[in-house]
Amino acid sequence: MRLRRTHTCGALRESDIGTSVILNGWVGSYRDHGGVTFIDLYDRWGMTQIVFDPEFSSEAHTIAHTLRNQFTIAIRGEVRRRPEGMENPSIETGELDVYVREFELLNTSKTTPFDVLHTSSVHAETRLKYRYLDLRNPELQKKMIFRSRAASLIRSYLTELEFVEVETPILGRSTPEGARDYLVPSRVNPGKFYALPQSPQLYKQALMVSGFDRYFQIAKCFRDEDLRADRQPEFTQVDLEMSFINSDDIMGLLEGLFSTLMRELKGVELQLPLPRISYQEAMLRYGSDAPDLRFGLEITDITDILAQTGFGVFRRAIDQGGCVRAINLKGYSEELTRKDLDAMTPFVKPYRGKGVAWIRMNESGPQSPIIKFFSEEEAQHLYERMDAQVGDVIIFLADTQKIVCNCLAALRTHFAKRLKLIRDDAFAFTWVVDFPLFEKDDDGNPTPVHHPFTAPKAEELHKLDQSPEDVISIISDAYDLVLNGSEIGGGSIRIHDHATQQKIFSLLGIDEQEAKEKFGFLLDALQYGAPPHGGLALGLDRIMMLLLGTDSIRDVIAFPKTQKATDMMTEAPNQVSEEQLEELSIEVFLMDDDEDE
Amino acid sequence: MRLRRTHTCGALRESDIGTSVILNGWVGSYRDHGGVTFIDLYDRWGMTQIVFDPEFSSEAHTIAHTLRNQFTIAIRGEVRRRPEGMENPSIETGELDVYVREFELLNTSKTTPFDVLHTSSVHAETRLKYRYLDLRNPELQKKMIFRSRAASLIRSYLTELEFVEVETPILGRSTPEGARDYLVPSRVNPGKFYALPQSPQLYKQALMVSGFDRYFQIAKCFRDEDLRADRQPEFTQVDLEMSFINSDDIMGLLEGLFSTLMRELKGVELQLPLPRISYQEAMLRYGSDAPDLRFGLEITDITDILAQTGFGVFRRAIDQGGCVRAINLKGYSEELTRKDLDAMTPFVKPYRGKGVAWIRMNESGPQSPIIKFFSEEEAQHLYERMDAQVGDVIIFLADTQKIVCNCLAALRTHFAKRLKLIRDDAFAFTWVVDFPLFEKDDDGNPTPVHHPFTAPKAEELHKLDQSPEDVISIISDAYDLVLNGSEIGGGSIRIHDHATQQKIFSLLGIDEQEAKEKFGFLLDALQYGAPPHGGLALGLDRIMMLLLGTDSIRDVIAFPKTQKATDMMTEAPNQVSEEQLEELSIEVFLMDDDEDE
Repeated sequence: MRLRRTHTCGALRESDIGTSVILNGWVGSYRDHGGVTFIDLYDRWGMTQIVFDPEFSSEAHTIAHTLRNQFTIAIRGEVRRRPEGMENPSIETGELDVYVREFELLNTSKTTPFDVLHTSSVHAETRLKYRYLDLRNPELQKKMIFRSRAASLIRSYLTELEFVEVETPILGRSTPEGARDYLVPSRVNPGKFYALPQSPQLYKQALMVSGFDRYFQIAKCFRDEDLRADRQPEFTQVDLEMSFINSDDIMGLLEGLFSTLMRELKGVELQLPLPRISYQEAMLRYGSDAPDLRFGLEITDITDILAQTGFGVFRRAIDQGGCVRAINLKGYSEELTRKDLDAMTPFVKPYRGKGVAWIRMNESGPQSPIIKFFSEEEAQHLYERMDAQVGDVIIFLADTQKIVCNCLAALRTHFAKRLKLIRDDAFAFTWVVDFPLFEKDDDGNPTPVHHPFTAPKAEELHKLDQSPEDVISIISDAYDLVLNGSEIGGGSIRIHDHATQQKIFSLLGIDEQEAKEKFGFLLDALQYGAPPHGGLALGLDRIMMLLLGTDSIRDVIAFPKTQKATDMMTEAPNQVSEEQLEELSIEVFLMDDDEDE
Repeated sequence: MRLRRTHTCGALRESDIGTSVILNGWVGSYRDHGGVTFIDLYDRWGMTQIVFDPEFSSEAHTIAHTLRNQFTIAIRGEVRRRPEGMENPSIETGELDVYVREFELLNTSKTTPFDVLHTSSVHAETRLKYRYLDLRNPELQKKMIFRSRAASLIRSYLTELEFVEVETPILGRSTPEGARDYLVPSRVNPGKFYALPQSPQLYKQALMVSGFDRYFQIAKCFRDEDLRADRQPEFTQVDLEMSFINSDDIMGLLEGLFSTLMRELKGVELQLPLPRISYQEAMLRYGSDAPDLRFGLEITDITDILAQTGFGVFRRAIDQGGCVRAINLKGYSEELTRKDLDAMTPFVKPYRGKGVAWIRMNESGPQSPIIKFFSEEEAQHLYERMDAQVGDVIIFLADTQKIVCNCLAALRTHFAKRLKLIRDDAFAFTWVVDFPLFEKDDDGNPTPVHHPFTAPKAEELHKLDQSPEDVISIISDAYDLVLNGSEIGGGSIRIHDHATQQKIFSLLGIDEQEAKEKFGFLLDALQYGAPPHGGLALGLDRIMMLLLGTDSIRDVIAFPKTQKATDMMTEAPNQVSEEQLEELSIEVFLMDDDEDE
């Protein structure tokens, strides 16, 4: 390289006018006006218009005509003010041109398979195959830089608070708990396998037993699950754990962290403390343990009002232990057509809902296919409870609690979008707390809602020794952080004393052998002065998606996998040699005629 | 937790005397003096002596007697000045005691399998099995905290310079190049495998093609090699890459980085620029491409002097294209016994040396078993060249260049230790530059010294089109960073234009098919406006070992593997279920009766 840049392509300002500068970058667009060639030269930092003018440099024209899109070039030139009316106020260098005096070709480029400056309509697989070109798109590049900045802010914040970043192993142990592990055959221990970690949970608890007191890690985690649109086989967690603390400390820490992130990354002042809502209240009011608080449309329970109703569908649901709940789409009667309302029933089908009833509060009185089944008193109670006024639409579901919650949660989101209740720049954080410690499995036995190291709340501890009903009602000291209806993090205070842990295991029907197999050394570790501790893990990929306002996880991961878990660019996974497999003491067996692949 | 700490165990100072404080921590040592119990309470930050005095608190005595080593406790107490003569100046809280008023037991502890405050003589495997207790040892803990701090400084330095940290995939592609890969069977692509990355090399070059311009990552890398004492299956690299730069830029950047690290971590002002030594000169003067510059004992070539010698052993080596080289152990004649000198020949055996000759420069004249074979002229020339004076010992080796280098390099280090020439706090950095691009393989064909993307120096490019001798003499634009005789990092300017890359492949006899298989997308990527770029990777584990002055890589990795690549704490790798293997379309086959394991 002869011409090494003095400025990046985003750096020049008015004060540079008249100076000689060197720029390096890529040829973006290209325009010829009467023998003078204008080129958008760009790099990571921005774009500067450079001008090849035969009056300024004799070879300019000849050179300019050899240039093609995405050539890499270096130029020396003079910074000039653009002629009046030619400025581009949308970019920071938009008042300037650089007139080229000297030129160096750094590299040519074949015609790219797509226009790297306009990729939105390019087929996803093509973009992934040529990811190195896809990432040359400034918008996508900015997202990766945003992510890097976020990670840097997170690290600074935690480091400032004396958190120690510890790298935990990627080659770990397979445990029968949780999702499917990615396995790695061990060559030197034939027949044995490592597992890639689903989370550093056991290691971070070990570090607390060691006395590290404040640990964090931005950690790669792995789950071999069938992929959904927003899942990847490897994902990144901001993992942290603290000792000698309670859940308020962890929540306070995280609030400070998100306050910093929102300020630095989005220019938003977060109002602290963040709201806290109990699991039970979240399920009741929003139908979800990850409620979206960017809009209202809250759910109201009306089971008590209709306990004796003559309306068979509702009555049967209630008699079978279910519930009736409703949402008042307040003031939206005019905006919602009959079609909107009729579409609700098919909409809730995937959530196992059998139907959605509605009442429109017209000037002329309530209009509804079901109103006739209610007694006058029931109707009056209902209007009161729902604060029903002219212009409202009330929608109803009756079913098991679970189905009602799922359907109404989905309808909430559906109508929020339909009615445009969600502002693009709204960020609604909330904690969800007071999760139950156990839920009943299919056989009616308690099974942990989180993992069996989650501590019960201190005031609930005594229930461990009481009746099965008391046990199932135990509230845990767990907390989830929710942003815009997505869980972005979850954690808990852990059990740190052996006696409580034993009680939990015995309630769960886990014997010593099984506990040892599943949780290994940690049970031992708790017996050597384990301190009170707790922590949390944040899903960094999800958080980036939410802060960047993108629905695609591929927008926040530099080299993502497809939904078939393949890397289109490197063509991984691939076939390996027989010798490699032999060394690992494994053989491939393929079920059908896949062998010919 | 009722008693939540107001201070850590390392925080109290004189100014706190008279105040009431709460401390949380572990019971270290324990001493009873006439009914008053003194306990060293410690945590990550330090140690404070707490006093259970029956005159101060009535229950004190009763409680103190229930406490055992490594119990976790919380206390509220009054800070007092220690009685005169009882201070402990070696710790920062050594002037103070805390008299306990209130007590909370946070956890008990079984008797630990070893004294966590004194682990140096504990069996390595026991420490690894109970790593969570091993890590409670303050010295080991400090090493992990040091590492965290180093990583944080590295990130800050690079982030400040607008480097973007990008996470590259752990589930990558197996390539036939390089060391043995760790493989991961793909469930959804039966018969195919991911490989864990040996380095992010291809991805970081892709990022340069994308225009990220400045990339870094503190990246986990993996090599399934037979482990040596200082190797681990997974290790950490500080990986970086830049565009539109030359090798001076990279070296300058790294010098700034290490200047910061040495200042912040070790209080050492590094003198910049760091020395640079060519590969050839390093081999000649130090016998190694990773020379230890903490001491002299340089090697001198004397082949020319002895070209016609009558001493058969030397003459034969020279006639066969070898060399004779010597080190003057200047002034150490008295310190070195005959035994030292006789021990040299067995010492060089592992390096394939056949023998080491010596001359002692006594007052009474040179003494040596070989001096009689030299002519007077040869001897005189030799004394002159070696600056031989009374009190010196000169040692000699004659053999192929490779063997001479290896043996003399080993002897240099051996005598530096034997003669105590290495100061504990010495840090000698050097760049080694001007590596050859190729070396000859066993068939005499060129093979890359680094990888085939390493660029030749610009002024050497023309040689690519010349004779095989010219080709083999090409100097590359690669650079290694060496600290105290260990390579801690290496990198190069990469080839960024397709034509040069094609020439290199053709010289290496790599056809298109093979290139595609080995390097995949990168060859394509270079054809789409790849910018000039280069970078470097640092071995973080090694650097930590050197800065912390430890010989054991286990001192710088929280959860290391044994030399059999097992994790003693989690018992990984382990056997997995048949169902797991079936899902992955693989079977284990064990050669002999290992199946019974």
